[in-house]
Amino acid sequence: MTKYVYTFGNGQAEGGAEMKNLLGGKGANLAEMNLIGVPVPPGFTITTEVCTVFNEKGRFDAFEMISKDVKKAVADIEELTGTKFGSKDNPCLVSVRSGARASMPGMMDTILNLGLNDLAVEGIAKQSGNERFAWDSYRRFVQMYGDVVLGLKPHSKEDIDPFEEIIESMKEELGIKEDTEFTVADLKILVLRFKHAVLKKTRKDFPSDPWEQLWGAIGAVFESWMNDRAIYYRKLNNIPVEWGTAVNVQAMVFGNMGNNSATGVAFTRDASTGEDIFNGEYLINAQGEDVVAGIRTPQEITLEGSHRWAALQNVSEEVRAAKYPSLEESMPDAYAELMKIQQKLENHYHDMQDIEFTIQNGKLWLLQTRNGKRTGAAMVKMAIDMLEEKFIDEKTALLRVEPNRLDELLHPVFATEALQSAKVIAKGLPASPGAATGQIVFFADEAGKYENSILVRIETSPEDLEGMVIARGILTARGGMTSHAAVVARGMGKCCVSGAGAMRIDYKTRTCEASGKKYKEGDWISLNGSTGEVYEGKVKTQEAALSSDFAKLMELSDKYTRMKVRTNADTPKDAAIARQFGAKGIGLCRTEHMFFEGERIKAMREMILSSDIKGRKLALAKLLPYQRSDFEGIFEAMAGYGVTVRLLDPPLHEFVPHQQATQKELAAEMGISIDQIRQKVSELEEFNPMLGHRGCRLGITYPEITEMQARAIIEAAMNLKAKGVDARPEIMVPLIGTVAEYTNQAAIINATAEKVFAERGDRIDYLVGTMIEVPRAALTAEGIAKEAQFFSFGTNDLTQMTMGFSRDDAGKFLPAYLEKGILKQDPFQVLDRHGVGQLVQMAVTKGRSTRPDIKLGICGEHGGEPSSIEFCDMVGLDYVSCSPFRVPIARLAAAQANLKKQ
Amino acid sequence: MTKYVYTFGNGQAEGGAEMKNLLGGKGANLAEMNLIGVPVPPGFTITTEVCTVFNEKGRFDAFEMISKDVKKAVADIEELTGTKFGSKDNPCLVSVRSGARASMPGMMDTILNLGLNDLAVEGIAKQSGNERFAWDSYRRFVQMYGDVVLGLKPHSKEDIDPFEEIIESMKEELGIKEDTEFTVADLKILVLRFKHAVLKKTRKDFPSDPWEQLWGAIGAVFESWMNDRAIYYRKLNNIPVEWGTAVNVQAMVFGNMGNNSATGVAFTRDASTGEDIFNGEYLINAQGEDVVAGIRTPQEITLEGSHRWAALQNVSEEVRAAKYPSLEESMPDAYAELMKIQQKLENHYHDMQDIEFTIQNGKLWLLQTRNGKRTGAAMVKMAIDMLEEKFIDEKTALLRVEPNRLDELLHPVFATEALQSAKVIAKGLPASPGAATGQIVFFADEAGKYENSILVRIETSPEDLEGMVIARGILTARGGMTSHAAVVARGMGKCCVSGAGAMRIDYKTRTCEASGKKYKEGDWISLNGSTGEVYEGKVKTQEAALSSDFAKLMELSDKYTRMKVRTNADTPKDAAIARQFGAKGIGLCRTEHMFFEGERIKAMREMILSSDIKGRKLALAKLLPYQRSDFEGIFEAMAGYGVTVRLLDPPLHEFVPHQQATQKELAAEMGISIDQIRQKVSELEEFNPMLGHRGCRLGITYPEITEMQARAIIEAAMNLKAKGVDARPEIMVPLIGTVAEYTNQAAIINATAEKVFAERGDRIDYLVGTMIEVPRAALTAEGIAKEAQFFSFGTNDLTQMTMGFSRDDAGKFLPAYLEKGILKQDPFQVLDRHGVGQLVQMAVTKGRSTRPDIKLGICGEHGGEPSSIEFCDMVGLDYVSCSPFRVPIARLAAAQANLKKQ
Repeated sequence: MTKYVYTFGNGQAEGGAEMKNLLGGKGANLAEMNLIGVPVPPGFTITTEVCTVFNEKGRFDAFEMISKDVKKAVADIEELTGTKFGSKDNPCLVSVRSGARASMPGMMDTILNLGLNDLAVEGIAKQSGNERFAWDSYRRFVQMYGDVVLGLKPHSKEDIDPFEEIIESMKEELGIKEDTEFTVADLKILVLRFKHAVLKKTRKDFPSDPWEQLWGAIGAVFESWMNDRAIYYRKLNNIPVEWGTAVNVQAMVFGNMGNNSATGVAFTRDASTGEDIFNGEYLINAQGEDVVAGIRTPQEITLEGSHRWAALQNVSEEVRAAKYPSLEESMPDAYAELMKIQQKLENHYHDMQDIEFTIQNGKLWLLQTRNGKRTGAAMVKMAIDMLEEKFIDEKTALLRVEPNRLDELLHPVFATEALQSAKVIAKGLPASPGAATGQIVFFADEAGKYENSILVRIETSPEDLEGMVIARGILTARGGMTSHAAVVARGMGKCCVSGAGAMRIDYKTRTCEASGKKYKEGDWISLNGSTGEVYEGKVKTQEAALSSDFAKLMELSDKYTRMKVRTNADTPKDAAIARQFGAKGIGLCRTEHMFFEGERIKAMREMILSSDIKGRKLALAKLLPYQRSDFEGIFEAMAGYGVTVRLLDPPLHEFVPHQQATQKELAAEMGISIDQIRQKVSELEEFNPMLGHRGCRLGITYPEITEMQARAIIEAAMNLKAKGVDARPEIMVPLIGTVAEYTNQAAIINATAEKVFAERGDRIDYLVGTMIEVPRAALTAEGIAKEAQFFSFGTNDLTQMTMGFSRDDAGKFLPAYLEKGILKQDPFQVLDRHGVGQLVQMAVTKGRSTRPDIKLGICGEHGGEPSSIEFCDMVGLDYVSCSPFRVPIARLAAAQANLKKQ
Repeated sequence: MTKYVYTFGNGQAEGGAEMKNLLGGKGANLAEMNLIGVPVPPGFTITTEVCTVFNEKGRFDAFEMISKDVKKAVADIEELTGTKFGSKDNPCLVSVRSGARASMPGMMDTILNLGLNDLAVEGIAKQSGNERFAWDSYRRFVQMYGDVVLGLKPHSKEDIDPFEEIIESMKEELGIKEDTEFTVADLKILVLRFKHAVLKKTRKDFPSDPWEQLWGAIGAVFESWMNDRAIYYRKLNNIPVEWGTAVNVQAMVFGNMGNNSATGVAFTRDASTGEDIFNGEYLINAQGEDVVAGIRTPQEITLEGSHRWAALQNVSEEVRAAKYPSLEESMPDAYAELMKIQQKLENHYHDMQDIEFTIQNGKLWLLQTRNGKRTGAAMVKMAIDMLEEKFIDEKTALLRVEPNRLDELLHPVFATEALQSAKVIAKGLPASPGAATGQIVFFADEAGKYENSILVRIETSPEDLEGMVIARGILTARGGMTSHAAVVARGMGKCCVSGAGAMRIDYKTRTCEASGKKYKEGDWISLNGSTGEVYEGKVKTQEAALSSDFAKLMELSDKYTRMKVRTNADTPKDAAIARQFGAKGIGLCRTEHMFFEGERIKAMREMILSSDIKGRKLALAKLLPYQRSDFEGIFEAMAGYGVTVRLLDPPLHEFVPHQQATQKELAAEMGISIDQIRQKVSELEEFNPMLGHRGCRLGITYPEITEMQARAIIEAAMNLKAKGVDARPEIMVPLIGTVAEYTNQAAIINATAEKVFAERGDRIDYLVGTMIEVPRAALTAEGIAKEAQFFSFGTNDLTQMTMGFSRDDAGKFLPAYLEKGILKQDPFQVLDRHGVGQLVQMAVTKGRSTRPDIKLGICGEHGGEPSSIEFCDMVGLDYVSCSPFRVPIARLAAAQANLKKQ
């Protein structure tokens, strides 16, 4: 028969740490602590399986299943604590808490002090010798139970809690301000009024039978698994509804029984820096919630910590020792035991623990232990420290760090204290991490107007590139995480907040409106690219410095990885940064960005606006030396590694001038009429440019472009060879859907290469391959692989076409999709394995079937996202490629993916 | 040992009609005619396999393989004809002709009179008693051989043929105008000068050895398989290069040996009407090419035909009999034999024959027979006639008609004679067949300005719908075969020419420029929707009338079909037309078109411009009665059959007003500022609307729209049920990519239906299903089919997304793709089986795996295209759906697809 209730107490437990799925994190660890001799108030855990029955078949079936066991388990608590449910002399009080497999802090409900009624309250008063404590506990219980179990808590934030209303009117009557000013008599009246409110609302008396209270509380905890907050949190964190929550019923211990009682929270190491320093906070004569609520100033647990705190807060040693003594000082015995226990727990779990404890009349009780949350920097330091301490092995150390959290180490950040006083004026998407402060400019070509500028645009386009390089940060009102602004910013490691939809930008008046206030050009604002928050004025930042632990982690990653990590880089500078971060080659070098600077854009526009092949060839000849020297720089920066150069990809419309002034200028330069320019610009307009005349379609209709680019690449590599530099070009044809498109372009590339070889009397090695980004290419990959030497999955476009989502427009419905749970994740951030991934898998299988040694990589944004990297490893890609600042993340994620498979 | 040379002659033949693949069409039929006792000049056929060797391994290998057999075969000709290669007395002259498996008229080369040299010409002169004939034949031979075999024919059309140059300068010298004025002496000089030109160009003497001539000619014919024209023609007609051409070498017979000789072309039935009337034309004392060249007026073969001709041409019986006698009159013996032979051939081939014959000195020779090309109307009539004559069986009759050719029967057409004098001013794509004449209007809302108007637009949008309904025809400068204008026009059976790119339209001045001339509003033009030609002024048309044969063919189709044919119809009128054409239900009823008329568009715009759900619901309530009554009309028109209604699909941007005047008007009506309207309109703008906020994404973000539409559908069906009409709604959710999108919308639909049922105390049956048009939906169809009761493949959008082609923009590169052979066919016209088809097949298999009885259909444009219909039958769809005017085509194509499988 399946076991649904697991008891623990007095050094015994039916469960254990390995039973997290069944008992939830809290329940499993309560059992485990018992087993290793840590003092824990006795209790029992109702399994998550019961939650599933509760939600699927209802309360009656679930409770029938467990009623006998629960009765038995309560009897155990009574026996161990020498108490009795509802007893007037020695009443048994319990807490009822949720506890899911994954931590869902604050999402579900908790009931404390359960078991109190008009008789039991007397028992507690007698036992504690503190009548006020007893009645305060009672009124808190009625309030909590009334809110949570009996449903008196209002659903909307605007409505007032009926209990709070009663308290407020009582205070008014009495002319007092603080809860603490209530007398015992006041508290007794409060309890009565609370019960009256319950009767009025529920048409039933407040339950005085502890058993009725208990079943009500258990039901409420199970129900809270399906409350809106919990559903939302699960969606955000990808927690399946099937997991369910466990319920923990545990004998109450009180940290607020007097000055010999206390309650606290501690970390076995520093969660912020990762240093091996035990630390935490406590309060004497207080309940757990008081520490968190911040009404009283919590005190440090260790003396060392207390001294540090005092220094920061400018508190004298005298005052500190008198008013804010450490636990080490105030309760040395309990402190000594806590020190032993925290070390024991860390040793036992082999990880930093986040623990909750209560001291009741001098006796230390542990209420919870769990692996502590920590900053990215702390993750790295702890993993490496513990490895060096031989506390954990290399694989464990690697798996201990969440790859995405490395991001925090790589970008400058706002100083924590500065953020506390910063005024948030808008919120967008955390498009590119980092912290930026500057003066508002609305036009890219004016980004240089101030030393520090923030480019504020409705959206950005490739024309804005130079300005984006100059600006400290980018803020857009439209566009998602993969909008132009976001992609480019991440590529540059530049702070960006995108899609701050509530902002109104008015280019004409050069103002923007946010949170009801107008900001004009030149006003200072600050962007938090890690949270999406926009602040008024300047906010102090601090630079990120990379630790030696970080370097060790990276080394370790490379030891365990199967896939290589390349970078997406368009300039020698980016290539160099990425190489510093450990990139082994370039997976995507976009050539279009090279056409935007100074003279180049003029030649590019000439090319586009030429009406015949002669004109185009003339303009392309001007572009050739620029391209060649760009490639020389990039190849040199990545010497010894492959550099995948993608041929021209975006629609030509992106290159032509759209503003009248620029059109006029260009017309004058080219000696044609502005009308001719306008005509051409309007001819280039497309209904759906994403599916239009771009990619290899350009090279097919204008073979001379492919020819020029192939020549620039081959000549650059040969120039470097002459200098003794090992350049390894890999030429990539974009947007292939049919093998015929590929063979057309490959023929031009190879013929051009042969021509250059003949001219120079020398040869070099190079590869020609293609992006797989059109669904049809994946579907017909066996044919394409016969011709192409490598595939690089362009999962940005592949996602757009496979799902039919324009990434620039998806902002209009993706938020609703995520909110309604239609999508679990933004598919532009996390690769959609079932749909898009199916095509990737298909292309890998089909591609290898005709060319077993085909080189396979990914160069979409997903190449820097850990879950997507795991998928790439699973399907057997040779490398992932991502923006320079994500290279470390990808290296770690690739290693983890490989380890997880084993 | 493989046989490479097949001889025929004198009632014997090594080949036969069944050997078309090996001998080509011409060769196989020449052999066959011999076998059935039809007089054919003796000769031999070199197989297509030799062509493949020739092209792959070269001339030497190919000729070595056949040289002995060719020598032997020539000896056979010599023996049968009593002639000798190069003989001065009795020279053997032959023709060398290509002949591929499929007819490729005029694409490859032909050499006549081969064997002539300075000696043989004397023999011919003697034999024929006509020295001028002999020398004219000789000079023609040198010219033809020089052009074709020796490569003197210029490659560019601008350059002049050197032989023509010589002829021209000779005429100038002599002061004559016509070739016929050359004397024998002149012709001799011409031959000399021709040979000189050859020597000058090739540095070699013109070959006088008939064997050298023969090998040269054989090589030239094989080479012509790879000439540009042939390659282009093969691409257009999907003829594989591997097929190769055969070479036919045959003893020459001359129709130009004097007045007892003649040459002609005849059809065993009327190729234009299909009537069982033998007809054709001939010329006395002429060569085959003279009949075609049209220098002399050809005469009718039968007396009856001759009389009809004379009546049409206003030629008196006196003149006719004297100058243009029929063959029946001029050569009654040859005519009698020809009559016997034509009947024999038709009886033998069981199909209308297109025959070529020559009468040499009174002796009739057949030079070719093949199944004759015919008009769509003729196809139908012949198939049904022959079936009723018990000449062919039902399956053969069905397979005899090309489905697409039925189109010609359904749309009004220009009168043939009117077209001869019409001035073509522009050419676009034949977007929707038919003939339209009217006065130019440039704005849809002015289409009613003239009784007959042609709407001329750069492109059309749904806003133009009313105007498109009113106009006689639509002409656009932009957009492809599946552009808005084209799709809507075909749906309405309205003539449309799209993408006439060379036209310049200026809305401001209300003029357009075509072929260098300006046309203004009100000017008359005519459109030929079957050819894409645009004519100046009025061109006379004739209405199409449907024959009883047509009805019989349709009946027969339904007897042999497996798939049903539905129609795409948005109005009761279209539904009724389609039902007349035999549609069994509606596969796609688009609801968006219903929102454009009069008051509706106002309510629609109110809905869109509302800032909250309350406003939207108010506006939707106004739309509900319109929708309901629309559906009532459509369901009634299709009573007894399923009607698939697609929920709102296009982006809302298409509905809002873009012109300032309309915006102003709307602002006034809604009591909001024009700025608010502009703001909303600009918010609705999208970068790639095709992949944007549309389809089910609208219903998910605005559930109230789905609710209103579901209510309108269900209420309409229930209203009809009350009237005793059998309405069968099938509600279709568009643009599904994930099953969660579907379940979201299906839940709303079902809940709404239940609500209506409860309100009315009655129920009806209805289905809910989805379109499969996003690649991801096909990839994950097993999950979607668990929920959806039917799939309808939206292959327009599926093609767009699978191939990454925006159909509205593809005009910029698709022509180049087709020209370069990168695509064999426009994938928006003919379903891309390998790519898009793979997804369709996948979705069928996956869908049936979880719901074996799922209803499967197609509603993209491909549903009316025969090759795509064949594919639909192969993968096992239950029905195809197409525009009303394509229903007959689809019915026939579906039957053929089913027959071809067997």
